[in-house]
Amino acid sequence: MSHDNQDQADASPDLQRRRFLNSAALTGLAGAGMATGLASCRQEPAAPAASEPAAKAPAAAPMSHSSVEVAPGELDAYYDFCSGGHNGDVRIYGLPSGRLLKTIPVFNQDCLVGWGITNESKAVLGTRPDGRPKYVSGDTHHVHQSYTDGTYDGRYAFVNDKIHGRLARIRLDTMECDRITEIPNIQGFHGTFPDKRDPVDASVNHTTRVFCGAEFSIPLPNDGRDLDAGEQYRSLFTCVDADTMAVRWQVLIDGNCDLVASSYDGKLAATNQYNTEMAVKYQNMMSAERDACLFFNVARIEQAVKDGRFKTYGDSPVPVVDGTRAANADPKTALTCYVPIPKNPHGVNISPDGRFYVCSGKLSPTGSVIQHDLVLKWFDGGLDDPRKAVVAEPELGLGPLHTGFDNKGNAYTTLFLDSQIVKWNVEAAIKAANGDKNATVVLDRLDVHYQPGHGFCSMGETRESDGRYFVSDNKFSKDRFLPVGPLHPETAQLIDISGDKMKLLADHSVYSEPHDSIIVRRDIIKTRQIYDLDEFPNAVKSYDESGVTRDGNKVTVKMISAAPTFSLDEFRVKVGDEVTLILTNFDKVEDLTHGFALPKHDINFIVNPQETKSVTFTVDRPGVYWYYCTNFCHALHLEMRGRMIVEA
Amino acid sequence: MSHDNQDQADASPDLQRRRFLNSAALTGLAGAGMATGLASCRQEPAAPAASEPAAKAPAAAPMSHSSVEVAPGELDAYYDFCSGGHNGDVRIYGLPSGRLLKTIPVFNQDCLVGWGITNESKAVLGTRPDGRPKYVSGDTHHVHQSYTDGTYDGRYAFVNDKIHGRLARIRLDTMECDRITEIPNIQGFHGTFPDKRDPVDASVNHTTRVFCGAEFSIPLPNDGRDLDAGEQYRSLFTCVDADTMAVRWQVLIDGNCDLVASSYDGKLAATNQYNTEMAVKYQNMMSAERDACLFFNVARIEQAVKDGRFKTYGDSPVPVVDGTRAANADPKTALTCYVPIPKNPHGVNISPDGRFYVCSGKLSPTGSVIQHDLVLKWFDGGLDDPRKAVVAEPELGLGPLHTGFDNKGNAYTTLFLDSQIVKWNVEAAIKAANGDKNATVVLDRLDVHYQPGHGFCSMGETRESDGRYFVSDNKFSKDRFLPVGPLHPETAQLIDISGDKMKLLADHSVYSEPHDSIIVRRDIIKTRQIYDLDEFPNAVKSYDESGVTRDGNKVTVKMISAAPTFSLDEFRVKVGDEVTLILTNFDKVEDLTHGFALPKHDINFIVNPQETKSVTFTVDRPGVYWYYCTNFCHALHLEMRGRMIVEA
Repeated sequence: MSHDNQDQADASPDLQRRRFLNSAALTGLAGAGMATGLASCRQEPAAPAASEPAAKAPAAAPMSHSSVEVAPGELDAYYDFCSGGHNGDVRIYGLPSGRLLKTIPVFNQDCLVGWGITNESKAVLGTRPDGRPKYVSGDTHHVHQSYTDGTYDGRYAFVNDKIHGRLARIRLDTMECDRITEIPNIQGFHGTFPDKRDPVDASVNHTTRVFCGAEFSIPLPNDGRDLDAGEQYRSLFTCVDADTMAVRWQVLIDGNCDLVASSYDGKLAATNQYNTEMAVKYQNMMSAERDACLFFNVARIEQAVKDGRFKTYGDSPVPVVDGTRAANADPKTALTCYVPIPKNPHGVNISPDGRFYVCSGKLSPTGSVIQHDLVLKWFDGGLDDPRKAVVAEPELGLGPLHTGFDNKGNAYTTLFLDSQIVKWNVEAAIKAANGDKNATVVLDRLDVHYQPGHGFCSMGETRESDGRYFVSDNKFSKDRFLPVGPLHPETAQLIDISGDKMKLLADHSVYSEPHDSIIVRRDIIKTRQIYDLDEFPNAVKSYDESGVTRDGNKVTVKMISAAPTFSLDEFRVKVGDEVTLILTNFDKVEDLTHGFALPKHDINFIVNPQETKSVTFTVDRPGVYWYYCTNFCHALHLEMRGRMIVEA
Repeated sequence: MSHDNQDQADASPDLQRRRFLNSAALTGLAGAGMATGLASCRQEPAAPAASEPAAKAPAAAPMSHSSVEVAPGELDAYYDFCSGGHNGDVRIYGLPSGRLLKTIPVFNQDCLVGWGITNESKAVLGTRPDGRPKYVSGDTHHVHQSYTDGTYDGRYAFVNDKIHGRLARIRLDTMECDRITEIPNIQGFHGTFPDKRDPVDASVNHTTRVFCGAEFSIPLPNDGRDLDAGEQYRSLFTCVDADTMAVRWQVLIDGNCDLVASSYDGKLAATNQYNTEMAVKYQNMMSAERDACLFFNVARIEQAVKDGRFKTYGDSPVPVVDGTRAANADPKTALTCYVPIPKNPHGVNISPDGRFYVCSGKLSPTGSVIQHDLVLKWFDGGLDDPRKAVVAEPELGLGPLHTGFDNKGNAYTTLFLDSQIVKWNVEAAIKAANGDKNATVVLDRLDVHYQPGHGFCSMGETRESDGRYFVSDNKFSKDRFLPVGPLHPETAQLIDISGDKMKLLADHSVYSEPHDSIIVRRDIIKTRQIYDLDEFPNAVKSYDESGVTRDGNKVTVKMISAAPTFSLDEFRVKVGDEVTLILTNFDKVEDLTHGFALPKHDINFIVNPQETKSVTFTVDRPGVYWYYCTNFCHALHLEMRGRMIVEA
């Protein structure tokens, strides 16, 4: 569908007026209290806004509340892996109950497990010269799992840090972060997605790459040059090796990256671009009526790297190929394809059958349906205009952001400004775009509370999308929960999508600010509950090994925990000593975790069954310091303690 | 009731055999896999342990699941304020839904709000000479609210840090920590409780003191002296002023402190003691058949301080009065009263009518009922033996720890080893102790899953205990939830106590390791949703004030956030500058929080509506660094960013 015939596709005249939001008007709205749905209800009681959050039942079909309750002793049906946003962590919820099952520290510090405190976690996080973690803050946005055969394989989850440009990997057997990679030459790492198979070797039908989109353009290298030459700033698209977590290659592009998607056949990666203007000022980022969805031809990029057709920037050895428009004018050799999309789009998602991408307009009320094989056709020279890969562009409502898919060909798009989820049929949208006046594109609308960001279906980002649940991660909860002061929780609303009409089942609360989640069938996740002593090179494997050794002022303390005692009920050091304490948990009982805390020395960490961890610290004052078990382990847990005796 | 007639009170012969657990046996159990309920179910499939966690319905009365579900748009009936344990934070859950509404960073770091990052939070946390927070770890154990007229007044919550010996205060209007006090001369600050009225001035019927119990004995001062003279180590009981948060006084005692309670009349504070042996080795902490519940006569202690009858230790100016047994032999002048309690007791709780304390035996299957006015009578010289204040000592089950109270005279005690809650009647226990064979002491038992620690009733620690809910915070969840790796969530099981029989309603999950909670009626909490610009001395109050000023290499950047822009879309500094950035959120819309993140400089914090926060950092490299809003605020949230331009 070209832009010219787009008007014919409009089935909702009432949306016409809202076709493209005028950017000047939007800017003005901000100053005027944002009547677009964010108006304060409590501030302006005389004029209820669209999002008036009275504690009313939603305007949906009759509710089935009992369906979210999981009786005592019963298990949830799904895992929900959720990025914590500017908390820097990843959370695991159970669905449908909404119970928070785990918080996995990733880019943040967490003294519960000792993340950022133990030597092992510091090795993952990276350190400064003085041994402290390099960063203690993060901003996790998108969490995705590794794939095999187009569905989750339970091996890894990947999550990005927007602030410092890092990609982290979480082992799903232990639910712990095992690797963090800081990506060079970028800022504002926003979207990420693993690939689903190799673009060339069809036998590699599992994740081996993770794609990473950088949102902010910067001078290259960012070493003080070109500070005021905004037009020379650039964004890069990055590929990280899923196994080694090394950066494989980067692509220099025009415009920026935002969200990222990957095709099921492994051939393409995609990112939506909201700032094709390449502006450095807010007000100039909305001048173009169309931005783009940018596709990367993975095989060609990797061939270019092999062929040595790349540059490097500054100290970074990473090969950077040229994906700009100017360098990719010939489709038959192009590394990239820029598909025009109206306006400041946000979000690109691929349908479970692998045939379509939906890229939302954000400042346009439209969702653009891009046909995968038409993009491939363009790369093959068979399509004269990338825009022709857009086969439908239905009007969905105001502020469309993200789209989930069920197993019946339907899409569910979050409408930020309308505070709605709109259910629509992809094939019907294509028929309507082709002139079928009888095609019913929009099937249902459901109010959510309020201003939804990401929305996602159960198994919806896999070939096994099952059409059971949709979760709307809303950015404002206002008064959906008991008031807890100026900082509100957000709502993750659980919606039943198994019938014709969506049903709002529950307001689950989430600590600010979840950004994106995936909903994973429980049978896919196979965890280990107990470690193996042998997987820790520094494990204290017997009571004979337990003890204190000294090398100059470096002291090594080896200790065992076994409920309700530590193997050492005291150890002795001197002021100025650098102490490395290694603790192995000998208990083999599932769930029998021990903690280790040392007063006044800021030491706090846990060891799970058969796990070993270590800390290194300097003792700087004499006295008696009682270390103790922090994780209730036994009737005599309180008595589980010992003394570090520090001589002057 | 004296120890001599205790045997007559035993109504359950089957408990007789378990009267006092032999400490040697307990020690041995640890090595043998803890058959006392902690045995691994997965490790020993052939011999299911008592706590076999099959996903079965509990052996309780018919369940009423729908009663915990809070429909979309509806509000919970109660707040649950919960200490996070060695996570160092405080959480707020809604009940009955179990939804996590807020996580309040206290002793930990939290890059979501910028706790430990902003100058304002560092001023609360205390800093090292280099400006970093003094500690980044904590271990919160007991959270309690301030009282007026014997019930919660919604002003403050207090919570302790066991590791570093700190007491924190949380403002309940904004749900933020506003003060932290590090207590001198102590280690292992475990129990804490606010007072409920002044012991002398009856018109002061609200909280003005917070009592703090130190669990670990140390040399005084702990400066390297007496390292090996364990018999000279001492614990102190501390009083902190609730308004100024200054330490008022301390009491030198024999033995240690554990949990803490305060009387409704303001006259007494109490702590259970599990190590009256004053041992420094684990195996010697269980030799005594009885330890104690120690009472403090607050008025007399404060008179002694006024009279100058105190010492100080080391650099601490805090007056320390002598509360040892030897110095307090005469009841009429005694500051302290040691009531013998069997064995290694854990937990002391006062009944809502103010008449009784229940102190649990832990290694004895008993709960000791201590009558408040008999303790006062001892202090008046009218009772010859403190033990006679114990008016009942019913056998409850194995490993009794903590007791909650309803509004019908019933007590609910957690049995750690039996994995049960036992409901019993206090007056009946006293009757039985007095020889009434017809008194039914134990009314009900309910299995919980597994190994309960604290348990607490709705409003149960106030005169307004309402008998609606009991929550059992269990230390092991084993397989009550979807598996999430070696570190398990804990279970907070919600139990309906409104009828004759307890009903298990829900397995709520909690991130490790909640230690204690209070359940507060929702009408008591009155929060503010928006700040006032004027409460921040450094607020940027107009766009005219926004800008950059320089004083040598110290640069001050004043900025305003108003969706979707920052007032400065760029600012310019030089390598080596020390930058203080002050950000005021001009938005007045409830829930419209903005975040501020600065790549590569580890800056990440939020400003709530009308709030001001600041950060200070040094720029150490040239280049362009995009600061951006982290908390989704507007359709153009992604475009809300600007450049810090650093010149070489």
